[in-house]
Amino acid sequence: MMSRRTSIPLRIGKVTVGGGAPIAVQSMTKTDTRNTKTTINQIKELEECGCEIVRMAVPDKEAAEAIPTIKRQISLPLIADIHFDYRLALAALQAGIDGLRLNPGNMGDRKQIAQVVKAAKEREAPIRIGMNAGSLPATFKPQFPMAERMVDMAMEQVKFMESLDFNLIKVSVKAFDVLTTVQAYKMIADKTPYPLHLGITEAGLPRAGAIRSAIGIGILLYQGIGDTIRVSLSAHPCEEVFAAYEILKTLGLRQRGATLVSCPSCGRAEIDVVRLAQEVDKYLEKVAKPIKVAVMGCVVNGPGEAKDADVGIACGKGKGAIFKKGKVIGTVTEEKLLETLITEINSL
Amino acid sequence: MMSRRTSIPLRIGKVTVGGGAPIAVQSMTKTDTRNTKTTINQIKELEECGCEIVRMAVPDKEAAEAIPTIKRQISLPLIADIHFDYRLALAALQAGIDGLRLNPGNMGDRKQIAQVVKAAKEREAPIRIGMNAGSLPATFKPQFPMAERMVDMAMEQVKFMESLDFNLIKVSVKAFDVLTTVQAYKMIADKTPYPLHLGITEAGLPRAGAIRSAIGIGILLYQGIGDTIRVSLSAHPCEEVFAAYEILKTLGLRQRGATLVSCPSCGRAEIDVVRLAQEVDKYLEKVAKPIKVAVMGCVVNGPGEAKDADVGIACGKGKGAIFKKGKVIGTVTEEKLLETLITEINSL
Repeated sequence: MMSRRTSIPLRIGKVTVGGGAPIAVQSMTKTDTRNTKTTINQIKELEECGCEIVRMAVPDKEAAEAIPTIKRQISLPLIADIHFDYRLALAALQAGIDGLRLNPGNMGDRKQIAQVVKAAKEREAPIRIGMNAGSLPATFKPQFPMAERMVDMAMEQVKFMESLDFNLIKVSVKAFDVLTTVQAYKMIADKTPYPLHLGITEAGLPRAGAIRSAIGIGILLYQGIGDTIRVSLSAHPCEEVFAAYEILKTLGLRQRGATLVSCPSCGRAEIDVVRLAQEVDKYLEKVAKPIKVAVMGCVVNGPGEAKDADVGIACGKGKGAIFKKGKVIGTVTEEKLLETLITEINSL
Repeated sequence: MMSRRTSIPLRIGKVTVGGGAPIAVQSMTKTDTRNTKTTINQIKELEECGCEIVRMAVPDKEAAEAIPTIKRQISLPLIADIHFDYRLALAALQAGIDGLRLNPGNMGDRKQIAQVVKAAKEREAPIRIGMNAGSLPATFKPQFPMAERMVDMAMEQVKFMESLDFNLIKVSVKAFDVLTTVQAYKMIADKTPYPLHLGITEAGLPRAGAIRSAIGIGILLYQGIGDTIRVSLSAHPCEEVFAAYEILKTLGLRQRGATLVSCPSCGRAEIDVVRLAQEVDKYLEKVAKPIKVAVMGCVVNGPGEAKDADVGIACGKGKGAIFKKGKVIGTVTEEKLLETLITEINSL
């Protein structure tokens, strides 16, 4: 993996983004912002599942007015997602929001932006310049490829904010198309020193959307690009947080909870590996320690992977060898495998 | 994306792998190979869900003897997965297998390999030199990092087979650790001209395993490396095939079925986007055409994404605008959205 791109750190509430800080995991509420009760509940769920920065839509005045009530009852940094109307950005800042996301595709009036920037500067609230392919005006440089158009429009706003002596800036250039997204981020990474917020927009349902997101975000992180990530999925926001951590764990960038190594099973397996893996995985959801647990179906890779894990099973015919920290500590029958493994996980 | 690495093409049954051929999707049966009925059924399921090459474990003589019966009733190319015992490789070749996977980590005796290579050459059956981190002997170059150890052991076997004037070779160097896997493939890609079979081994259950696999396989494919892929998941093998195609579709390398663009929903949405996306996705499972369908919750990115899709919905308050090939063709109430969208999908 390449070394990480250096970016200027900024603080969103209590969380540092950029400058070598751990890559922060973001998500977004999917409740009606004006319903403060359900919104607060979802933010608390998000905190519990590991979200570190939460964003919520502020589509109208009533939503902006809900901010103080919500802020009082949560501890996660809160970002207001603003489109079209700069007055909602001003209202959110006045209501004590920790950061803003503005979309240059639908908010470009310089006088209006200048007012928002002035208010954000006074409150030291960072602004994300959040480009999306889907909201880029068709009239903006239509002769260029999408990646270049997103980068150019984002950079115009970056430069305008810099001209106002504002540098609490984050940037994103998201598209549904993964190759376009990767290209856009690679381009903008060389043009600005600000932290980059990565994501694949409108990626769809978890089954396919997590794969799309993992490829796009994964390629960029592997190249050292990215300071905070949000996986966009048509699902409960904790599913986004789960996927985000899996991406970061895979690349060795963050730790969170247990990791299950399990074989796909094949004609060689003599126990039901898939079911055992599912049962172990279900138990591991409750395990906070960053341990590695292996469930392996046979002697081909079983002993090797089980040895390499903190706890592991390498199965044979109707039984399995239990490994702990690289050593076989016993052999048990199939029906005792789950229970024995759980005991060993708990004893770690 | 970088240009694809050039590799020497080979044929596995009716499928060409390497040399610029479409990246082939593989999976593996998870039935008891000796039970020819369930194995044949699973291979037929695999063919139906898009698998192009199927591998099955041949762990004993009885499994090898099942090959002719299985071969007679399937049309997918069939590869025998062999470990430990070279005689099973000979038996599989004699039984008419289309290709072999041998694991140099547990089958290294040169006299034995030479016999297998001779028989494979006579039958023009390709051999995959299939390294796995989990089955690499601890005594093999323990002072080196895992990626280098896998590459070195695989290359020893490549060179030995070349010395026997055999070049129907494919190579894989899989590990659970994604960074190790990527590093190993990048190294071996420069050392051999043979097609590479990509995978992340023992990646686990689909929810996390598809993400791990997408990152590892995705990074390599993005760099132009890889000729055939197998996603290893503790699940029904068609789940592996689904994930494989999503990876390839994301990178523009293959087309298969419809693609759903759907927004994650947020406090701005005034209809139940997630439920609608789920319903549309369920319908799209039956659609074979490589179309793009967008389900978008609001006016921010909705019209842009819906215009960009073959068919799309951009929702507002209790209703949605229907887009087709870039144009609004009508507006319908929430309860008619699914039905209208399906009608338009079918009319494409």
